[in-house]
Amino acid sequence: MVPKPHLDPQSEVPLYQQLCRHFTGLIQSGSLRRGERLPPTRELAGLLGLNRTTVSAAYELLESEGLITGQVGRGSFVTGGDPGDGAGLNWNAILEASHVTSIQPAWKAGADAISFAVSRPSEELFPVDDFRASCEEVMAGPDFASVLQLGSPGGYEPLRQYLIEESRQEGVLRPSDDLMITTGCQQALDLVRRVVLQPGDKVLVEEPVYPGLKNLFLESGADLTGIPVQTNGMDAAQLERALAKARYKALVITPNFQNPTGATVSRAGRESILRLTHNAGAVLIENDIYGELRYEGESLPTLKQMDPTGDSILLRSFSKISFPGLRVGWVMGPRALIGRMMEAKQLSDLHSDQLSQATLLHFALSGRLRAHHAHILQAGGERLKAAVAACERYLPGGTRFTRPQGGMNLWVRLPEPLDTSELLGRAHHEGVGYLPGKYFAVNRPEPGSLRLSFAGVDPVRIEKGIKILGEIFSTELERQIASREREPAPAMV
Amino acid sequence: MVPKPHLDPQSEVPLYQQLCRHFTGLIQSGSLRRGERLPPTRELAGLLGLNRTTVSAAYELLESEGLITGQVGRGSFVTGGDPGDGAGLNWNAILEASHVTSIQPAWKAGADAISFAVSRPSEELFPVDDFRASCEEVMAGPDFASVLQLGSPGGYEPLRQYLIEESRQEGVLRPSDDLMITTGCQQALDLVRRVVLQPGDKVLVEEPVYPGLKNLFLESGADLTGIPVQTNGMDAAQLERALAKARYKALVITPNFQNPTGATVSRAGRESILRLTHNAGAVLIENDIYGELRYEGESLPTLKQMDPTGDSILLRSFSKISFPGLRVGWVMGPRALIGRMMEAKQLSDLHSDQLSQATLLHFALSGRLRAHHAHILQAGGERLKAAVAACERYLPGGTRFTRPQGGMNLWVRLPEPLDTSELLGRAHHEGVGYLPGKYFAVNRPEPGSLRLSFAGVDPVRIEKGIKILGEIFSTELERQIASREREPAPAMV
Repeated sequence: MVPKPHLDPQSEVPLYQQLCRHFTGLIQSGSLRRGERLPPTRELAGLLGLNRTTVSAAYELLESEGLITGQVGRGSFVTGGDPGDGAGLNWNAILEASHVTSIQPAWKAGADAISFAVSRPSEELFPVDDFRASCEEVMAGPDFASVLQLGSPGGYEPLRQYLIEESRQEGVLRPSDDLMITTGCQQALDLVRRVVLQPGDKVLVEEPVYPGLKNLFLESGADLTGIPVQTNGMDAAQLERALAKARYKALVITPNFQNPTGATVSRAGRESILRLTHNAGAVLIENDIYGELRYEGESLPTLKQMDPTGDSILLRSFSKISFPGLRVGWVMGPRALIGRMMEAKQLSDLHSDQLSQATLLHFALSGRLRAHHAHILQAGGERLKAAVAACERYLPGGTRFTRPQGGMNLWVRLPEPLDTSELLGRAHHEGVGYLPGKYFAVNRPEPGSLRLSFAGVDPVRIEKGIKILGEIFSTELERQIASREREPAPAMV
Repeated sequence: MVPKPHLDPQSEVPLYQQLCRHFTGLIQSGSLRRGERLPPTRELAGLLGLNRTTVSAAYELLESEGLITGQVGRGSFVTGGDPGDGAGLNWNAILEASHVTSIQPAWKAGADAISFAVSRPSEELFPVDDFRASCEEVMAGPDFASVLQLGSPGGYEPLRQYLIEESRQEGVLRPSDDLMITTGCQQALDLVRRVVLQPGDKVLVEEPVYPGLKNLFLESGADLTGIPVQTNGMDAAQLERALAKARYKALVITPNFQNPTGATVSRAGRESILRLTHNAGAVLIENDIYGELRYEGESLPTLKQMDPTGDSILLRSFSKISFPGLRVGWVMGPRALIGRMMEAKQLSDLHSDQLSQATLLHFALSGRLRAHHAHILQAGGERLKAAVAACERYLPGGTRFTRPQGGMNLWVRLPEPLDTSELLGRAHHEGVGYLPGKYFAVNRPEPGSLRLSFAGVDPVRIEKGIKILGEIFSTELERQIASREREPAPAMV
């Protein structure tokens, strides 16, 4: 597609600059038009017999000149030059001002790859026949046409009423509360943000934290402070110190099996966090998306249940306990807040899809959800055990990792000087994926940390995958130590 | 539930103030707790033998004192007083700063009511069996578990590829464009706003305009200017004058069967609007949600097709041509823009439900969508004809209304001094609903205007409903004229 450049290795002009000039010419002459994709760096390097870093450097230069834009996992596209038949908009300038940032690196995993990168359930465990039966019940129902018709921002009303009733019986929903359905917990976070946060508001979150929360709140101009998560979840003493120093608008916490650490806040911790947040007059947002995935130990009440004021906001979802592809979550909170969130929902997308909501209602009412829940609790427990055992066995000495009682994630801290971002390419090459700690950092990056999402992988592959990671990490650690020993001591000056 | 007040009709204190004091006492003493609902005004008025306006006045006073909050269609709730076991948050203050505003008045229509209030298809025309067959095909497919699994922000990939192919063949999607799936057109508008608009940006919209666009953009701090819609859609001459006066970031237009007017922009108008927007360097956002609902006349190319620069953004949806409850729309635009919108989508809700996307794909691929489309075109044409005929026959002399060639809406302008907001209560009382013009106004309210959404009502009920409206409007017009004639001329001073 792209004409081959004439590059002169003898020239004083570095090769990457020559390559950059070549592309600049193609873009300015219109041979490469806006929106066209540049060859991947690896492919072009192979084609031209160049080092891949040379090609990357050329692309970086082109990007700094506004001629191309790199999109994570999608390649580099021409954004500058003549737009074609007429002079068009400068999309770089228009989009530059946006605060939206990309979140996850793409990894095109092969069929036999082992991915610990995504915190999601295992699709082999999906009770597809049970789901089909529930959906067929919905489609055979006398009110089915109304499921297909325009609905209400609060959600499909029969499902909403079911969740209200369940939450009341559980003692979570008070008479002063209301409940609405959202497109997963992610949308609940977005809607809370929309009605509660102003740009510049200070918000407390966990450190490390779920990247989808961090990026969403940063996009809205919030000023985030991370409170470290310890074995017993968010550290109350550090929370107290933070609250003594500044005025915070809100605190977001995942007290059960936190993403990414898997940590759970103790009962005493919950009481402290509630008291501190309450005294500080901050809005408490409790994300309980993993709460129903307890494989061992005793359940603890939600912060919302323990909260004497009734002001807490509680987020839940069907995504982790059943089918994330259906995107059905819900949120409970004071009536005035939920009323405003419904208005924000109407502006966002009118309402969520109703076929999935109606089907999940039948899936729950028929007892199929309960059966599936029991099944995934058993499978999840086995997977958790396999992951912990493999970490103990295969990860290099000096590694620390969490030992959660539920959820989908383990948090691993490798010994220094290992850097999980640098090692990820090697892991992908060996067919294993994970998310490096940098995606979860708020104020304190931990280059040696990584998240292992174990719930989507069966025990045999968990062991195999962690074994491969252990070999990569151990080899690199030995190499680093050896090279450090070889390095001559610097002269004292 | 609420203790009956002792009201003294002989007192110098007006009854509504007495009633307000009574409730203030109940709230401050904790007899009425935060989040509790006050009796509906009508019910309380009946109970106490008071005029309903007295009760409304008392509630307004309570609301102005921050003790209760009225939510349209949901009643009034206690928001002040003692929060219960501890001093809680001041939700009024927290939510006050939000820009989200409520959109539509709720009307609990009875089963035999005739509602022209919502621009949506008729559920009696839904091909439920065809839908069921498509969904069953999806559920029987070998990849069904992946439909239930976590997906991608761009949409369910097979549907996305289908829409890309269709749009390419139609000549709408260019090589420099990309396409993503959204939760209906409303979310496409929200995502465009998120990545393109900054608070304070000036945006051109139609006048009158779709309220979901107006409220969304106002919430994001945009400064809206309405360009009047005439018989041939947005007026290019007025657009030119506006663009000469100020710098606008974007223009949003629905060139086909605009909501609420039903107006369509002529080919010459499209050329002018494109040229003007292009010369002004503004982003052109084309909402084509009604484009496939042409009942008569010749189709016109989209602005995106006519645009020499390729910068236009085009929004489409399955909502009006099939099932709005599934919330599946899509948006096309320059690759860099769509890439950023996918990132914004991930922050909004990760992705849209996949069951509906997969089912709609099968619905389209099987030819069932085409058959349904032919059916609704025929039914829509009949409904449009019935609506126009009834407007001609029953609405009072001096009424003007649009005569669209497609879509779902007619725009009616009643003779002065009729006020459609004031008359709505009477229409509801007679079992007929519509949306008063005030919801659609940007800069120029037209109190005598209203939107008649005819597509969801069968021809017999269209005639019946418009006849009832005609009687209400004519009676009121006669009354107003008579009372004007009776009024003595004021003395000249």
